[in-house]
Amino acid sequence: LSDLIDSLYRGLLQGDRRSAARLITMIENGDPLSIGVVKELHRHSGKAQIVGLTGLPGSGKSTLACGLAKKYREYGKTVGIIAVDPTSPFTGGALLGDRIRMQELAGDPGVFIRSMGSRGALGGLATATNDVINILDAFGMDVIIVETVGAGQVEVEIVKYAHTCVVVTMPGGGDEIQAIKAGILEIGDIFVVNKADKEGSSRTVADLEMMLEMKPGFDEAPWKQPVIQTVATNSQGIDELHEALDNHWRFLNETGKLEEKTSERMKAELIEVLNSKVSIAASKALSEDPKCREVLTRLIKREIDPHSAADQVAKYLIKGASQ
Amino acid sequence: LSDLIDSLYRGLLQGDRRSAARLITMIENGDPLSIGVVKELHRHSGKAQIVGLTGLPGSGKSTLACGLAKKYREYGKTVGIIAVDPTSPFTGGALLGDRIRMQELAGDPGVFIRSMGSRGALGGLATATNDVINILDAFGMDVIIVETVGAGQVEVEIVKYAHTCVVVTMPGGGDEIQAIKAGILEIGDIFVVNKADKEGSSRTVADLEMMLEMKPGFDEAPWKQPVIQTVATNSQGIDELHEALDNHWRFLNETGKLEEKTSERMKAELIEVLNSKVSIAASKALSEDPKCREVLTRLIKREIDPHSAADQVAKYLIKGASQ
Repeated sequence: LSDLIDSLYRGLLQGDRRSAARLITMIENGDPLSIGVVKELHRHSGKAQIVGLTGLPGSGKSTLACGLAKKYREYGKTVGIIAVDPTSPFTGGALLGDRIRMQELAGDPGVFIRSMGSRGALGGLATATNDVINILDAFGMDVIIVETVGAGQVEVEIVKYAHTCVVVTMPGGGDEIQAIKAGILEIGDIFVVNKADKEGSSRTVADLEMMLEMKPGFDEAPWKQPVIQTVATNSQGIDELHEALDNHWRFLNETGKLEEKTSERMKAELIEVLNSKVSIAASKALSEDPKCREVLTRLIKREIDPHSAADQVAKYLIKGASQ
Repeated sequence: LSDLIDSLYRGLLQGDRRSAARLITMIENGDPLSIGVVKELHRHSGKAQIVGLTGLPGSGKSTLACGLAKKYREYGKTVGIIAVDPTSPFTGGALLGDRIRMQELAGDPGVFIRSMGSRGALGGLATATNDVINILDAFGMDVIIVETVGAGQVEVEIVKYAHTCVVVTMPGGGDEIQAIKAGILEIGDIFVVNKADKEGSSRTVADLEMMLEMKPGFDEAPWKQPVIQTVATNSQGIDELHEALDNHWRFLNETGKLEEKTSERMKAELIEVLNSKVSIAASKALSEDPKCREVLTRLIKREIDPHSAADQVAKYLIKGASQ
């Protein structure tokens, strides 16, 4: 077993795709063996620009990710794509156009595409995704694009802690903008109005720009979020998006904001790992430990409430841990 | 302050809507004072049928929830609706038709509608939603409908632990079905094909039914998931959906499955509360505790990895807790 770990570790650092793929599957399945490699590989990561791409299903995130990957390849950069989205073409149900685009990329050794499901450990999607980001970083990818649906709390948090967060919307009767207002206006570094050949595109751009300008502190903000129109299906606007991503990366590096972002990212990542560990330990204790089972029984009978029950289980977990 | 808590507690049990609304706002904002009331109210809850309603944005969940609420009112039942969905009309951006439907309901003292954002405490959306479910249960609502978007991990987990989980889809070129396949086929007790007046509806029903029949153990399963066609905008199929929900509630009560579901629900709820507590404690320690800050600094420098860092922070948290 330790031979397997060792060979995966070496394989990955030598650029072996199969080692990377196998390790990621282990992470996704919550295989405890993967943690050893993840830990060892961590010091080899930290070089990539992590780009979060979020938006509602149907906004064209996957097509944009493919377009961006091709653009980065033209500049000689290697690209990892992680799709954390049950409605993403990467995870099944791809339209023909997307399939063709993905196949073009799939043959390129400088591109690594992977989808992530939530079939892993309890509450572990964010941790698994963070682990895969670090793996692809250590694997030598220059840019890592993480695509998530902008409607789930975990999914939004995953891209929130990327170096650069791209929020994708499309022309519409105002409802899409409302959806963005409800939380993801704050996290976007770059906004994209995709499907810009549809009616109402310039109106959507104007609405977005107005909302951004209305944010407190907009005038003094060192980074002004650009709003870019794209038609991902024919690569229109991909140049501008690529340039904006480069500009933001330069901005982060030149202003010291990169350290700030990295610090926030690491803090969030640490708390996620802690939560995963607690979930797994608590789930086990509630099935196996007689005292914890007793707490659960009393909770089910409504003799105690969930908050008090959690305090009691925490005590038992802590006692167990300190022995 | 304890007067406020006491008056909210009494007010809520006496059916005062403003007390309920105020308490829910406190929960949503992560106000620690709310926990005392939530704890006290817990023993008054446990009577309501909790219905989870999930599907992609645009599938018409909110309109269905309104239609169902009206139907339940015809049968003299009181209804709570909790919308956990940034793209839901309940949370802004409602179309005119939805606004009219919601206003009809809003004037009815037997209906309580509430939307939940994720602006509360760290990772606390599931816990806040569970608390609000228990509050509306203690408030005397017979049925509580929890609407979430079927694309987010937290959001899907929230409805997964409802008594009855309704998965909403709509006619389409197969993509919606793919999206359902990717995880929520497992959690549905009832399936709805909404917008059934659109082309391809019977095809979508047939596809769904085939997928359900292909599931291992389908023939022996004591509950056969029905697939119901609805046109929520003109109340078509709402009778059938209402009947299916009643059937499932009866099934749960008669077979002893209700206790099983309640046990699973309580376990999940307990683990969520535990996670919220750990997130809050860890976030505080990583800002304030010098030893935890040192761990974070080493993590940022990549001297250690997130998994080892989480172990170290856990140790400090445990030491702090046991003092």
